[in-house]
Amino acid sequence: MPPGDSLPRWICDECGEIHYQNPKLVVGTVPEHGGRLLLCRRAIEPRYGYWTLPAGFMENDETTAQGALRETLEEAGAAVALGAPFSMISVPRVNQVHLFYLARLDVLEFKPGEETLEVALFEEADIPWKDIAFRTVAATLRHWFADRSRGDFAFHAEDLP
Amino acid sequence: MPPGDSLPRWICDECGEIHYQNPKLVVGTVPEHGGRLLLCRRAIEPRYGYWTLPAGFMENDETTAQGALRETLEEAGAAVALGAPFSMISVPRVNQVHLFYLARLDVLEFKPGEETLEVALFEEADIPWKDIAFRTVAATLRHWFADRSRGDFAFHAEDLP
Repeated sequence: MPPGDSLPRWICDECGEIHYQNPKLVVGTVPEHGGRLLLCRRAIEPRYGYWTLPAGFMENDETTAQGALRETLEEAGAAVALGAPFSMISVPRVNQVHLFYLARLDVLEFKPGEETLEVALFEEADIPWKDIAFRTVAATLRHWFADRSRGDFAFHAEDLP
Repeated sequence: MPPGDSLPRWICDECGEIHYQNPKLVVGTVPEHGGRLLLCRRAIEPRYGYWTLPAGFMENDETTAQGALRETLEEAGAAVALGAPFSMISVPRVNQVHLFYLARLDVLEFKPGEETLEVALFEEADIPWKDIAFRTVAATLRHWFADRSRGDFAFHAEDLP
């Protein structure tokens, strides 16, 4: 524990550098086209073969919005118009915070990126609920369809135990 | 650049471990008591002596809400009741995302923590605008007073260039 700190830290035995370990932001979008949502089937672990919303680790030198757009382009080959932040879900078990933006896919162009097996648009009735990769994605999809039903998209902040 | 990656990374010459550098979340609160807001005067650099909202780096094994409560207790000695997320501001220049929650200080108890010189409640007219430590704090305070004026607190997402 460095002087003045309140938690133990990873400190390099060689040079004394302190490597702080902090939660990472995962940023992504809920791309909508004509009432259908765009999902990606994962070509990487964890959860290879399962369906997810386009999302990934936010990188340095970008904003949350830029990261969400970049990941959507990388994973789904889709250039979306970004809307408001829609869900923010803490996942302390893996030290992550997942943040999804509303997004509109205006032009019907998408294709799987390197980390994606396939990309497809789903009606609510066709969402592969049993094959969704992550609980944050399932929660975000549920919020999206519930909000659409009541005709108002809110911002949803919550935690996964 | 590791295989399959799209960005250069810090890789340990000794063991090959990849040290990903991702933006950090700074979490805090806007504590309100009877129309006044609680500010802390910083006892540490950067911005020693300037006023800020209680906030700090989110730690592993906690949620954004838990981090905001912890920082408010550590820096201001204040046990607040947390409200909704209020502002989320990307600051790519320093690879940070600042997230502030609405908060209510029900019991009038607070005291400076180790990183704080003093803690005080301010009416809108008395906010030390010229001595606010960070632009995200100033922006959050401006949003708070504007929202109070119109009688509705919204969620504000934005970026600082």
